[in-house]
Amino acid sequence: MKRLVSSDPGFAKAFARVVADRREADDDVSRDVRRILERVKAEGDEAIADYTERFDHWKLADDADWRIGAETCEAAYHALDGVLRDALELAAERVRRYHQAQLPERRDYRDEQGVRLGAIWRPVDAAGLYVPGGRAAYPSSLLMNAIPAKVAGVERLAVVTPTPRGDTNPLVLAAAHIAGVDEIWRIGGAQAVAALAYGTDRIAPVDVITGPGNAWVAEAKRQLYGTVGIDMVAGPSEILVIADKDNDAGFIAADLLSQAEHDPDAQSILITDDPEFADLVADRVGVELATLATRKVAEQSWKDHGLIIEVGSLDEVPALANALAAEHVELAVANPEPLLESIRHAGSVFIGRHAPEAVGDYVAGPNHVLPTGRRARFASGLSVLDFMKRTSFIELDADALTAIGPAAVALAEAEGLPAHARSVAVRLNRRRED
Amino acid sequence: MKRLVSSDPGFAKAFARVVADRREADDDVSRDVRRILERVKAEGDEAIADYTERFDHWKLADDADWRIGAETCEAAYHALDGVLRDALELAAERVRRYHQAQLPERRDYRDEQGVRLGAIWRPVDAAGLYVPGGRAAYPSSLLMNAIPAKVAGVERLAVVTPTPRGDTNPLVLAAAHIAGVDEIWRIGGAQAVAALAYGTDRIAPVDVITGPGNAWVAEAKRQLYGTVGIDMVAGPSEILVIADKDNDAGFIAADLLSQAEHDPDAQSILITDDPEFADLVADRVGVELATLATRKVAEQSWKDHGLIIEVGSLDEVPALANALAAEHVELAVANPEPLLESIRHAGSVFIGRHAPEAVGDYVAGPNHVLPTGRRARFASGLSVLDFMKRTSFIELDADALTAIGPAAVALAEAEGLPAHARSVAVRLNRRRED
Repeated sequence: MKRLVSSDPGFAKAFARVVADRREADDDVSRDVRRILERVKAEGDEAIADYTERFDHWKLADDADWRIGAETCEAAYHALDGVLRDALELAAERVRRYHQAQLPERRDYRDEQGVRLGAIWRPVDAAGLYVPGGRAAYPSSLLMNAIPAKVAGVERLAVVTPTPRGDTNPLVLAAAHIAGVDEIWRIGGAQAVAALAYGTDRIAPVDVITGPGNAWVAEAKRQLYGTVGIDMVAGPSEILVIADKDNDAGFIAADLLSQAEHDPDAQSILITDDPEFADLVADRVGVELATLATRKVAEQSWKDHGLIIEVGSLDEVPALANALAAEHVELAVANPEPLLESIRHAGSVFIGRHAPEAVGDYVAGPNHVLPTGRRARFASGLSVLDFMKRTSFIELDADALTAIGPAAVALAEAEGLPAHARSVAVRLNRRRED
Repeated sequence: MKRLVSSDPGFAKAFARVVADRREADDDVSRDVRRILERVKAEGDEAIADYTERFDHWKLADDADWRIGAETCEAAYHALDGVLRDALELAAERVRRYHQAQLPERRDYRDEQGVRLGAIWRPVDAAGLYVPGGRAAYPSSLLMNAIPAKVAGVERLAVVTPTPRGDTNPLVLAAAHIAGVDEIWRIGGAQAVAALAYGTDRIAPVDVITGPGNAWVAEAKRQLYGTVGIDMVAGPSEILVIADKDNDAGFIAADLLSQAEHDPDAQSILITDDPEFADLVADRVGVELATLATRKVAEQSWKDHGLIIEVGSLDEVPALANALAAEHVELAVANPEPLLESIRHAGSVFIGRHAPEAVGDYVAGPNHVLPTGRRARFASGLSVLDFMKRTSFIELDADALTAIGPAAVALAEAEGLPAHARSVAVRLNRRRED
């Protein structure tokens, strides 16, 4: 853990280093991924089966090897412990309702020149969702990706998920049942992303691919951007907690560790205006770590990337927070509202002393897929819009064309596009002749 | 030009080939671009100056070599022919108003569990706009990119544009004056995109980069996606005209050619239910081509990619149009409304016999930057949203946490994330003790 004091002479430089630190692997996997994509495009299912056997030690022969059926998901759902099932249902319901309110409206109006203008939002036909195997296979992540797609109106939602040596995660299958996933394919890695984008004999292509994955999956999505739509590239998770001294130091320490336990590259930052409170939190992090089952990961993250910044006043916070553009921001202060307004770059903000970030990961309703690595400067959390697209429309009658057409003719001619000009002019001339 | 008849036995196969044909260059420029990006990142302005001298034969020494000042743009504006100036102003005003109505609203509400939820849309701090030099330097394109950024509230809008041997385009400069562009840099290519994304000593970095460019520019944007936000990858332009026999064949021919003149790789497609009308249009395309200043390009496009499809009934249109997912769709039919509803995949739709696509390129109001190459399946035209991002927020009091917190604890434990569970549980326990 690093500690910085904003009034120290070296602060600006040290803080700039934190902001510039990307914490992302620079493995050059792009050549490998390019080869995988090309092979899947050319050979389809055969390439998929080959890669799956090689990487996941899973043989794809019969239909049952390829897919997990709806009945298996339903069985997983019914086999769940009741408390857990209710928790998943509560989460799904709250996420569904928050995202339903995001649905954009159609526009359709006529302006004073008599031009009818508008835009229609529609869902994509099919979406693909990557669900990692192993440690990062989270049912909450499935809900957060699948529900917005379904709320958007996507008719076909196909999940790909690696099942190394045949292993599946019953919680994820139960979540797929709740979310109404239409297909689950037992494939993973760049080859699964390629199958979704290009389609194979078995797997119909999709229009949008979302969901977290390792470096190969992320690179495959990046290379296929344009062939399909994708969600934002994601890096390690991060939290910025703004806390005054009137907090329980144990609560704040728990919040910092909840981020740190995700990944050794995750980052937890505390900004406080009270040096003694900073000491208390630092101590409590140490105490909490001692009894944490995820200690190894959390300790590594806190050691390598943890940061406490002491400021002279909370007025210094917005500039620092905007430079960090953090994925999660907690405002555990007496008067959070001005900070909500002045922190312009953040994925999601948690307001007050009773809003630990973890409620947002599961049950609050807003999406937990959020921009990381300073991308909150330009990117947003996942929403129904990621699974929709907009068609604009324009209707003119002869009067409307007479009103605005001549300007189009003038501009088309000036741009050296005479056929553009002519397509308008012939109609204007006919009008004049009539 | 190819002609297909939907009742022919080979139609499905021939049509599938049209849909699969991407018309996009497969040049592998990615290695070149990667090298350019790395060098600009490492060497900054020096690399930029070197590339600009090499590719654009333009020496960047003094400030005046690097930038075109606001006074130059203003002078270009005042020097414009009056008709053209009025046309640009009309276009700008109509584009501005259409995009103002796109501005998304803030959400802020409290649900029945007492959880306050919402989302705040904000503009990015800075946007960069690529404006090609040479043939494709269109003032309308500058307006269509710059105005949404300014309407979104972007404070700093930086244009990069190559000025080969010093050449500038006064129409583009005048449009920059109208749109309120803040900076214009005389640089182009992948190196200009890199300068915008990484920043250099002279050029501050931006958050989002939009605008058309050649293969190197497009690949630079693709590689920098994630470092900055970008607009959708764009390919050659295309139009799909649906026309019944009650149209003037000359109008429809003009519309088809207005797309063909953009680029030899552009594609114009007519679908009609009347074989005689198809003949008439085909003839008229030939006649119009003879007198067109852009004949060479338009003829090549029509010869290589032009297509007329005869259908037995307009009822066949939606399936074909949805497979094509065209950038522009004209509905020159007696009853366009059902087609507007049933054609789900289209960038922009032009309704009726008085709405040539060219009005949308200039003055209608909706954006003319639209998804090409079947990307209307999942992508939308440029809008204010491309220059904005959303921060979600969550506020809970102790009662609200008591209502939904236990479910978060259960899910966190099930996912093997004990620090997540603890951050909620410590607060719930404190409540119980109070």
